[in-house]
Amino acid sequence: MSQLAVINIGICGLGTVGQGVWKHLARSRAALECRLGVRLRLHRASVRDLRKKRSVAVPTAKLTTDPLAVATDPAIHIVCELIGGTTVAREVTLAALRLGKTVVSANKALLCAHGPEIFAAARKHGGHFFFEASVAGGIPIIKALREGLVANRFKLIYGILNGTCNYILTRMEREGLGYAEILADAKRLGYAEADESLDVEGWDTAHKAGILAFLAHGAWVPTNKMLVEGITRITQTDLQFAREHGFAIKLLAVIARDFASGELFVRVHPTLLPAGKVLASVNEVYNGISVTGDVVGETVYIGRGAGQDATASAVISDIADAVLLLRRGNAPLPAPAGSRCPLAPPERIRSRYYLRLDVRDRPGVLAQIATATAREGVSIADMVQRPGARPGSATLLLTTHVSNERAIRATLARLKKLGSVLGAPLLLRIADF
Amino acid sequence: MSQLAVINIGICGLGTVGQGVWKHLARSRAALECRLGVRLRLHRASVRDLRKKRSVAVPTAKLTTDPLAVATDPAIHIVCELIGGTTVAREVTLAALRLGKTVVSANKALLCAHGPEIFAAARKHGGHFFFEASVAGGIPIIKALREGLVANRFKLIYGILNGTCNYILTRMEREGLGYAEILADAKRLGYAEADESLDVEGWDTAHKAGILAFLAHGAWVPTNKMLVEGITRITQTDLQFAREHGFAIKLLAVIARDFASGELFVRVHPTLLPAGKVLASVNEVYNGISVTGDVVGETVYIGRGAGQDATASAVISDIADAVLLLRRGNAPLPAPAGSRCPLAPPERIRSRYYLRLDVRDRPGVLAQIATATAREGVSIADMVQRPGARPGSATLLLTTHVSNERAIRATLARLKKLGSVLGAPLLLRIADF
Repeated sequence: MSQLAVINIGICGLGTVGQGVWKHLARSRAALECRLGVRLRLHRASVRDLRKKRSVAVPTAKLTTDPLAVATDPAIHIVCELIGGTTVAREVTLAALRLGKTVVSANKALLCAHGPEIFAAARKHGGHFFFEASVAGGIPIIKALREGLVANRFKLIYGILNGTCNYILTRMEREGLGYAEILADAKRLGYAEADESLDVEGWDTAHKAGILAFLAHGAWVPTNKMLVEGITRITQTDLQFAREHGFAIKLLAVIARDFASGELFVRVHPTLLPAGKVLASVNEVYNGISVTGDVVGETVYIGRGAGQDATASAVISDIADAVLLLRRGNAPLPAPAGSRCPLAPPERIRSRYYLRLDVRDRPGVLAQIATATAREGVSIADMVQRPGARPGSATLLLTTHVSNERAIRATLARLKKLGSVLGAPLLLRIADF
Repeated sequence: MSQLAVINIGICGLGTVGQGVWKHLARSRAALECRLGVRLRLHRASVRDLRKKRSVAVPTAKLTTDPLAVATDPAIHIVCELIGGTTVAREVTLAALRLGKTVVSANKALLCAHGPEIFAAARKHGGHFFFEASVAGGIPIIKALREGLVANRFKLIYGILNGTCNYILTRMEREGLGYAEILADAKRLGYAEADESLDVEGWDTAHKAGILAFLAHGAWVPTNKMLVEGITRITQTDLQFAREHGFAIKLLAVIARDFASGELFVRVHPTLLPAGKVLASVNEVYNGISVTGDVVGETVYIGRGAGQDATASAVISDIADAVLLLRRGNAPLPAPAGSRCPLAPPERIRSRYYLRLDVRDRPGVLAQIATATAREGVSIADMVQRPGARPGSATLLLTTHVSNERAIRATLARLKKLGSVLGAPLLLRIADF
């Protein structure tokens, strides 16, 4: 294997990302060949429709409609799975791995749903599975966690991992418009999908949080075991309050580990982040990740989290790593940190909280709310009353001292039962890091 | 080599960094062994004084006063050169490399002075030289440039690479005190060396800029071919002007490549950086680097640039990489991007400029200065006059539109000859990125 002069690359799926990989590989091939000491050949690609017009010129002879034919082609060393989804993508990935090939993927949903199966297949047959492009696009965060910071245990990782949500929140903050208006415009401009729910409800971020948790702590946390909240209920009132109190609101993934108890916390929610934090200034479609290691301290990584080119940059870096592994006789990559860690239930989360309540504007309401809060041991830090949206109503904005999720949920349940509280209160968490 | 069960590590130099590496390797050895699939042994270390008290417990039998004995010990696979300087460190490094060993170093001065010789020795004898810790401490920027962003050509890299300078500028900005006062305090607190000149005159940053330029463009630029300016002349007047105009002043290394002409620009100087840039908020001893790749766009990396622990984190990540290479049969790392690139002379730099002039406060002076400036084709964008430090003097603060280094230097020469200009004008560059 180490005498290999030509490395053949197959691409399953020539959509936006696939075309980006093809384009940039073709363009920078000479430079990469020189740096890696091999010849690289774009050998074959699978597409859904052979006649569809594409931004890259791929000879028809190299195209097939059968992704499995690419994955199992004996001439191909490295298979890029860029189909997306978890059905055909899984078949293609497992077929290639079972033949000892190396697979490069940008597919976070696949990894979250079938990570253990995929890594077991790679291990068993001597191949590898690379996934730098699955989290934070072009930022080499997978490599940083797995290799660059290998000396560290990770107490805290938090980050902005979804460009669509960050774009929407940034424009809401800057333009003073509502969520629905900005979302509609984001769709028109191509910054949000036709079905936006995976992004704005936090599930895309949760998939990425699961991958980071695996890398940092060796545990696969299913998204249905995480606290996952999206940005759909954020209003100008919340953004204004946050700004006035020195915060920005960001949708964060938080992966925290309590090394005393061993517990792992993985959660996704809009967060009031102190304006002085670097990530509070990470705006528009950019992603940012803060990684605190017990040796290195805090490090921060910022860049474009998605898009054809940023994703292609990550896929090509994986291809380069795969090439060097092939040249080096295919020995194992460093395994993720492997200590067993119990997942903490969301009820164990401790945080400061922000609460927005619509209430009837009449005497005694404040006392009722203060009493309900105190009953659950939740201590109010700051409270503001504003005129409500409807006549006879008021909006209460309050923050708490550090409390825990169980107590704040019990408080919410109490508040909802009060006749004076109108509609569902909004609960946000305030970063304590 | 791939059956190797035990990897023996030798450490030359048990100073601050050496003790940090020993401490963290000892502490995290079990986890690292599990992840890397080998046993790691701290085999031997060299010190200057056997009896000196250290913060780590090293058995006397493992200590020697002869670093070459460690470098050439047949049992040792990986030699950490943590002595510093360019004499003994060079001997030790070359001796180990000539025996086909792998060397891990944090020594930026050595690399800048003898980079080609070191890499040639590694190549010839089949060993490797790792140097993640030489730039930006615990931030895995070497790995990001060489591996994570391998698909990219780098139009612009700029960064805050010296923690001492950033600490001094941050405190000057926050506390309103002068350079000399803050420097004295920084020395007292251990944030500046007894001889601070390497840091504050920009040479430490220049060494690191040279290493980044090599990684990104494959060319070794000697520091005496770079424009290198330090922070010693920055005053509160400059900081205040910068703040009022929406800038922070940071000592930046700038590595810019004009891919049309092929020219490479490498320079180090205090820079007025727009406050909205992420690096403008990187304060105290933190380092930050912005890397713009032609595929990925801009990515930013932030973390502690120095200190025992951050440096140890980087050294240990290099050791882990070296271990995996040994297991994989020692095939080459990706070479740095290797296109030939002519170094642009500093005169070719184009920038906006900030100029502080002390002048006699008398009629006609402004006209003289405006004329001198116009004669060289330099166009003034903004001018402020303040009362001068001495009676009868005034301070002029001005910024220019984009000009070039040749023209601004000619302007300075003209200004210095005017009887109305007192002392040497201060020239700073304004970031155009």
